[in-house]
Amino acid sequence: MSVEILFGIHTAEEILKAGRRRVIRLVIARNEKNRRVIDLAGLARKNGVRVDFCDRRTIEKLAAGGHHQGVIIETGRLEKLDVDEAAGLEKDLRKTVWAGLDGITDPMNLGAIIRSAACLGVSTVILPERRSAGLTPTAHKAASGALERVNVVEVVNLNQTILKLKKKGFWIYGMDMGGQPLPRVDFTLPAFILIGSEGEGLHAKTREHCDVIVSIPQKDGVESLNAGNAAAIVFYELSKKL
Amino acid sequence: MSVEILFGIHTAEEILKAGRRRVIRLVIARNEKNRRVIDLAGLARKNGVRVDFCDRRTIEKLAAGGHHQGVIIETGRLEKLDVDEAAGLEKDLRKTVWAGLDGITDPMNLGAIIRSAACLGVSTVILPERRSAGLTPTAHKAASGALERVNVVEVVNLNQTILKLKKKGFWIYGMDMGGQPLPRVDFTLPAFILIGSEGEGLHAKTREHCDVIVSIPQKDGVESLNAGNAAAIVFYELSKKL
Repeated sequence: MSVEILFGIHTAEEILKAGRRRVIRLVIARNEKNRRVIDLAGLARKNGVRVDFCDRRTIEKLAAGGHHQGVIIETGRLEKLDVDEAAGLEKDLRKTVWAGLDGITDPMNLGAIIRSAACLGVSTVILPERRSAGLTPTAHKAASGALERVNVVEVVNLNQTILKLKKKGFWIYGMDMGGQPLPRVDFTLPAFILIGSEGEGLHAKTREHCDVIVSIPQKDGVESLNAGNAAAIVFYELSKKL
Repeated sequence: MSVEILFGIHTAEEILKAGRRRVIRLVIARNEKNRRVIDLAGLARKNGVRVDFCDRRTIEKLAAGGHHQGVIIETGRLEKLDVDEAAGLEKDLRKTVWAGLDGITDPMNLGAIIRSAACLGVSTVILPERRSAGLTPTAHKAASGALERVNVVEVVNLNQTILKLKKKGFWIYGMDMGGQPLPRVDFTLPAFILIGSEGEGLHAKTREHCDVIVSIPQKDGVESLNAGNAAAIVFYELSKKL
């Protein structure tokens, strides 16, 4: 079985609470005094999860330089979903917001976007397998546990997926320059919102498939919003429709 | 004279374009092929700024481990402003949005928030001198040049500053739990919006001074939005009033 070694208090907490995957063990720094970490050990034991205590050095090694906060969690991988399976998990597909990431290559950004998605009611995030950051431990840490709450679907071809979503009734919105100003867009659900990379925006082919291009009005002469903030803003506008 | 050593293509570009501070020299990695870096050298020369070429090792050292992209810029410090001076720089103070950061201790977050401020029309950001990240080179890099466009005021006492802003006619809004849902808040300008830290929210005293507490409606059971994303969302709502 393939094992994931993840770290951070909140990530471990969410994994234990959500119960979406098999947990092999929780590893905690010996003599840890942080109340939240001690509570975590209690939660793990309550769920029948083994708790091991190690010296900080071992934890450092397991976290491979990540910001571990004295906590490692070893788990089985989340089950991979395809688009139809993710659609099947929705109570009412007509009332959903999904997001697609087109060229987000920084795992910190990827994690932060998934965290915003979870907070603001985006239920599924679609990632192309190539030209995208993967779900690394760093992405998990930045997602702060949100990967246990959002369905992540990795696809080979984003454009084919868009066509499939259109057939399912989704409206396709793309965040990019030169589109309709966000405050004036009247979104229709189910909505699929595509977020491009900071420098480049959406790929030309992806853009072609969009029903509406959406832009956040910004001051001239400044580098644009970073991709994570742009995503948070559009998810927020969409959450008003949920 | 006190010198700042900053790095990154966009930071250097914004400093050269904005012309708000004295530039001592631009340092570029020898044999750099990136078109944007080469254009930068041209821009510097046009502005009468000395351009030096160094080996990558020297650049690494000057950037002290930061993400330099082959570019270092040595400048004089931005002039420090107080609240009255920042107010004096506004064309019409009654039509402004200012932000205050209450306990943002991560320089990456600080820089990202200043970048969002610049993009979304927040013209002044107020930082308490203590309990706050400083304007380090890392904050500059995350701000991606936005520090040249936003007035940053460092204050000894944030609460005294709030009282001063009230006298100038500002409405004081605080982002925190348990407040009015953001989509339903009808902001009045001039507005001063206070952003707290992720874990803790606003300090109790700061919260007391607010006219309105504002919350972003979020799904239960998930760690809340990170401070940078929450700031971007509220700045976006405020930008509709500008």
